[in-house]
Amino acid sequence: MRGEIDEIDSELVRLFCRRMDTVRAVAQYKSEHGLPVFHPERERKVIEKVSARAGKEYGTGAGVLFQTIMDISKSYQHIQLSGERGARLRAQIGAALGSGATLPKKARVACQGVPGAYSHEAARQMFPSPDLSFCGQFEDVFEAVRSGECDYGVLPIENSSNGSVTRVYDLLRDYRLTICRSYKLPVNHCLLTSGETDLQKLTDIYSHEQGLGQCSQFLRQNPQLRVHIYRNTAAAAKFVADCGSATAAAIASEECARLYGLTVAARDFQNARQNFTRFICMSRELIIEPGANKISLSLTLPHTAGSLYRLISRFAAQSLNLTKLESRPLPDTDFEFLFYFDFEGSVREKPVLDLLCSLQEELGHFEFLGNYKG
Amino acid sequence: MRGEIDEIDSELVRLFCRRMDTVRAVAQYKSEHGLPVFHPERERKVIEKVSARAGKEYGTGAGVLFQTIMDISKSYQHIQLSGERGARLRAQIGAALGSGATLPKKARVACQGVPGAYSHEAARQMFPSPDLSFCGQFEDVFEAVRSGECDYGVLPIENSSNGSVTRVYDLLRDYRLTICRSYKLPVNHCLLTSGETDLQKLTDIYSHEQGLGQCSQFLRQNPQLRVHIYRNTAAAAKFVADCGSATAAAIASEECARLYGLTVAARDFQNARQNFTRFICMSRELIIEPGANKISLSLTLPHTAGSLYRLISRFAAQSLNLTKLESRPLPDTDFEFLFYFDFEGSVREKPVLDLLCSLQEELGHFEFLGNYKG
Repeated sequence: MRGEIDEIDSELVRLFCRRMDTVRAVAQYKSEHGLPVFHPERERKVIEKVSARAGKEYGTGAGVLFQTIMDISKSYQHIQLSGERGARLRAQIGAALGSGATLPKKARVACQGVPGAYSHEAARQMFPSPDLSFCGQFEDVFEAVRSGECDYGVLPIENSSNGSVTRVYDLLRDYRLTICRSYKLPVNHCLLTSGETDLQKLTDIYSHEQGLGQCSQFLRQNPQLRVHIYRNTAAAAKFVADCGSATAAAIASEECARLYGLTVAARDFQNARQNFTRFICMSRELIIEPGANKISLSLTLPHTAGSLYRLISRFAAQSLNLTKLESRPLPDTDFEFLFYFDFEGSVREKPVLDLLCSLQEELGHFEFLGNYKG
Repeated sequence: MRGEIDEIDSELVRLFCRRMDTVRAVAQYKSEHGLPVFHPERERKVIEKVSARAGKEYGTGAGVLFQTIMDISKSYQHIQLSGERGARLRAQIGAALGSGATLPKKARVACQGVPGAYSHEAARQMFPSPDLSFCGQFEDVFEAVRSGECDYGVLPIENSSNGSVTRVYDLLRDYRLTICRSYKLPVNHCLLTSGETDLQKLTDIYSHEQGLGQCSQFLRQNPQLRVHIYRNTAAAAKFVADCGSATAAAIASEECARLYGLTVAARDFQNARQNFTRFICMSRELIIEPGANKISLSLTLPHTAGSLYRLISRFAAQSLNLTKLESRPLPDTDFEFLFYFDFEGSVREKPVLDLLCSLQEELGHFEFLGNYKG
């Protein structure tokens, strides 16, 4: 039976290649004669016909098979016709690559929070000597970059405990900034006290809500503690330093202990051993540094069986490794989903660039958020 | 050329069906003789062989094609052999279906927050006359259900502005509770004041951080306002009612105005027109109500190109509609991802049950979180 399967397979490969050749000739002809290349209606008819032919038993499977065959065809045709498609994105990426821009060592950088916040640390990791502006809210960071007051903005985009920072994704869309670098910062929460506090006598604890959530095991073991939510961990540390109470503690970074003169009563205080936050650096103009190896996209898909599968097949067909995939319901519709994709790749590789340019033309909403070192 | 394609297609369908028949006979033989049915090594060799045969031009495409063919084969074989696989999950689901349990009208229900919180409203939508216990933190709700103090727990799982509530997903895993219903609650934030406040004279605003984030446009237009973060919107409303200041306002639900005697100064106060939060109801024992149409899963996949694509192909092969898909990095490894899946379906349909039972056997970590009305 294995011999029979091998025989069938070699025949299948032969037919597959012949079909690809023929489809390519059709696409070439159409393109030369100014005819539209892709026909959703024709695709639907092919699926119907082959499903009927395969009968009740294998009808669904045959439908899936031919959808895949046509997806692979399109993937080849996109490469073949790529010169014509996605001109706007192609030009934008071409200009960025041509400029050869990289991030400077010194720049005016906006980040959210106060000195000692985790954003502060991330900004220092990305820029050896940044000229920092601290903003009150996420949106202020976007505004600072858009207005030109700052050159770059550093914000959290994802945390291993709390997931995506969806507000930053929303603002990226609204402000049309692009991602030019990312940095994965290990988050090691410390318990900070003013002077030599007896931990048994603590009565009040101060931190950001996420910091408190990430240290929930300690809080559950100490239900007598009053919990106070602050806008960020560094502000909580500053408050504990200012009030100087021997019964108050903050959950914040070790850097905050140094900045505000607090004592580190405990390190690695969070529930999960390895907790991290990924920060992005944003710029007004698209910057694609040499060695950029990560691509972020945002796009919408119709809420129908198989639409995501067909999209992912395009990435799989080029052996591109997805590192993040997230659906978000769109508030105003039940019929479409917003997706965030991250994958490993570089627009310096032509098949990758061609894929992105094709998607930009095909999808109702498609945003290339950046190609950066991550 | 179209005629040629049609001819190739009818030959492809014929070969596809013949291959399915042969593979099925192999699976039957192996199963009868106690041999293992699936061979990753053999799959890899088939892909290598067909890729080589298709040549440089179409090698990658042929690989994708045959991966799909083998995925479809496996999907059929899983159905064929389903009696043997995933016995534990099959028994658990069988018992739940056999019991015919449904949610009662009256039950002891735990939810997080204080009266007037959005969780309160969600619990009332799910249980017409609940006997409610309000808990301080998410984990307290889980503890109340696990200990038997309450029968059900109601918690938020997803918000259209803020994404998934990852903490609840983490606790679902730790406490091994299951989802027995979900409810999508429209969130309409109101601006609440004590008595007839002149909005021009407001100085302080109180709410939960998410409530403040969802009304950020108003806050940006009124930068003079001092913002105070509370643990939940209802607690903020209660504070404004208690302090009675004519210059303070809370962002909270209309229900809070009624409960705490506040005035609704503005309705639909949030940025996005349609903002909603999806709540789940959790139980100790698996309950699958009649009409349950939504299935939630949590599983891990290796972080390699194509692993997600192959998994999704299994759903696509049965025309199952994914309604949520989210990857989360696992804190302790760079090589695996945790995924949350929601899809439309019922375990009362045998192919769906068979798919779940197969996945449970094949994947390192697979959790069936529930099949419920959503």
